[in-house]
Amino acid sequence: MSERIDTARSVGCVTPQEVAFPEPLRLAGGSELAAYTLCFETYGTLNAARSNAVLVCHALSGSHHVAGWYADDPDDVGWWDNLVGPGKPLDTERFFVVGVNNLGGCHGSTGPATIRPETGRPWGAAFPVVTVEDWVRAQARLADHLGIDAWAAVIGGSLGGMQALQWALDRPERVRHAIVLAAAPKLTAQNIAFNDVARQAILTDPDFHGGDFYAHGVHPVRGLRIARMLGHITYLSVDQMAEKFGRARRAGDLSYSFDVEFEIESYLRYQGDKFAASFDANTYLLMTKALDYFDPAHAYGDNLGAACARARARFLVVSFTTDWRFDPSRSREIVRALVENGKRVSYAEIDCPYGHDSFLIAHPHYHRVLAAYLGNIRP
Amino acid sequence: MSERIDTARSVGCVTPQEVAFPEPLRLAGGSELAAYTLCFETYGTLNAARSNAVLVCHALSGSHHVAGWYADDPDDVGWWDNLVGPGKPLDTERFFVVGVNNLGGCHGSTGPATIRPETGRPWGAAFPVVTVEDWVRAQARLADHLGIDAWAAVIGGSLGGMQALQWALDRPERVRHAIVLAAAPKLTAQNIAFNDVARQAILTDPDFHGGDFYAHGVHPVRGLRIARMLGHITYLSVDQMAEKFGRARRAGDLSYSFDVEFEIESYLRYQGDKFAASFDANTYLLMTKALDYFDPAHAYGDNLGAACARARARFLVVSFTTDWRFDPSRSREIVRALVENGKRVSYAEIDCPYGHDSFLIAHPHYHRVLAAYLGNIRP
Repeated sequence: MSERIDTARSVGCVTPQEVAFPEPLRLAGGSELAAYTLCFETYGTLNAARSNAVLVCHALSGSHHVAGWYADDPDDVGWWDNLVGPGKPLDTERFFVVGVNNLGGCHGSTGPATIRPETGRPWGAAFPVVTVEDWVRAQARLADHLGIDAWAAVIGGSLGGMQALQWALDRPERVRHAIVLAAAPKLTAQNIAFNDVARQAILTDPDFHGGDFYAHGVHPVRGLRIARMLGHITYLSVDQMAEKFGRARRAGDLSYSFDVEFEIESYLRYQGDKFAASFDANTYLLMTKALDYFDPAHAYGDNLGAACARARARFLVVSFTTDWRFDPSRSREIVRALVENGKRVSYAEIDCPYGHDSFLIAHPHYHRVLAAYLGNIRP
Repeated sequence: MSERIDTARSVGCVTPQEVAFPEPLRLAGGSELAAYTLCFETYGTLNAARSNAVLVCHALSGSHHVAGWYADDPDDVGWWDNLVGPGKPLDTERFFVVGVNNLGGCHGSTGPATIRPETGRPWGAAFPVVTVEDWVRAQARLADHLGIDAWAAVIGGSLGGMQALQWALDRPERVRHAIVLAAAPKLTAQNIAFNDVARQAILTDPDFHGGDFYAHGVHPVRGLRIARMLGHITYLSVDQMAEKFGRARRAGDLSYSFDVEFEIESYLRYQGDKFAASFDANTYLLMTKALDYFDPAHAYGDNLGAACARARARFLVVSFTTDWRFDPSRSREIVRALVENGKRVSYAEIDCPYGHDSFLIAHPHYHRVLAAYLGNIRP
């Protein structure tokens, strides 16, 4: 979703960093990672008080590459470059912004494609299922490493918004502001259903080899492609699809074949192909499971209010009118739980046509809301 | 979706029939079928005036087996048995009801799995893409064969409703009433997108063999299973899924694996497996294409009103509040086009929780509407 870069307001050329954590990390699923590496990027300068750091959490297919570009690939612009930079809503002249690739990811942090020291082979199917709580725990060590006692803000959209919320619940003393965009307090049966169809497409691809496809020199591109095509439908709004593609045909006449007939087919297949060529299928599976499992209220008798009682952050919650993956009523559940606990919450429901993906778009009203909220945070 | 049979009001044991049409059938796609067979069932008695016949058109996965059961398989109850029978809304004591398997189907009518006389092998990939117009043309010959000049009614839901509408447009003199349930005048980009993901799952299954899988002794069950799982999500309403499954787990504790975790996953995988074991993948592809291509307004400059001008039937259009595949606004498009042309239309928007599949359910209000409308048709 990255747009062409605005050079004057760009963080410029950036370099990813890595940090290895040699201490074991206990996971929610009961297993333990003996050690792990996180890949991250930073933009702006950490102030002397170390009080101006903002953590950006990524969603299903994101990475630590949030803003700027790479010297060896100037076209590889960060996925949230429209938000992060000098003079932008998340202003790198005021904030020290940190992007991190999640554990289990495929952009440099330890994940299923990482060579496992014990075996000399990729983790593959042996990589444990990780949860949003695990990510918070893993990211907290990154904060320690950077000398950041408390984040000025933790921000994210979708699965990233879930991490921002979890941070505020699990590390109340380390989060001053939680910015939760296009998120939900847990998935519905329909959300889980879509995820499971995507997973089944990957798991039943003959090239999946039970998750150990690396050893076979193949990748389950068929399944991952189907998963991404399906995901993409849920990221876009019905009206946006109708307006952008409608029933426009690729060629003038109907082909009466199974080739591309309508523009929407061409678009989806292209998106699927592009994604399947670059993303790791095991990571995709893990990310969808983290979504399914996210349910902070569960341990509190399904009482989200009770789960939120321990938070000390101020909150900004944002939803988008045409998001049917996590529609505004899901964000309002979060707002209600926080308000019931006397937490300080700002809520904006943005009238925006871009569906779930709206949180990635430089929509003027949305960006004004973020700029206003972030502008009021004292570093 | 068939429910357990009410023996007292059942049409009882039924026998499918076949009729071969040796005349060539020109298809919308430009090709020609040299001959074809249709498989059908009838319930009730054709009156002396041959004026009480009702044609039931099936949707994506239906068949000619609309009501009753088979002597050799009493559990194989027709898919609309709750609607069709003595004393039921489509009352077989008054009407002569005809169910027919569509051309391209996999329940007995000529389709991709049929042995092609020219080659002695199944049609497979060589079977032409068929459209709703083609089905009306094929079914009209069945009406001729049965000596039915005009149907008292043509009725169907979803893709079946599209056929009912097309019948009224293409054979105005042969349809006295068209009953169009849970339908739309054409698919949206999102509708097409879901169909294309389903098709791609089948087309890229290594067992598909370009559509000629019969010769390889395999069937693309993986792809067909994914297609059905996905379809199923779009047939159910969000609230129904939430109520029926929610986040209920299969076992008490989370497994942190890719096995079934939530009940919704178990349900969807079961539905997918069951369907993939019995339905033909090529037929599935054809049915989704017929949906994509359905667009009676296209030849009239996208003016649905102009397309409807030639209809002479009376119409009953029914939509369901929780149907998000073809939501009520889509039915209202049809109603508006008919009303603008001074056609006689009854419209009911049924408050029913079962999503798109509502048209198959014996919902009391819905069945009362159908019973009232059908009760007023003079045979």
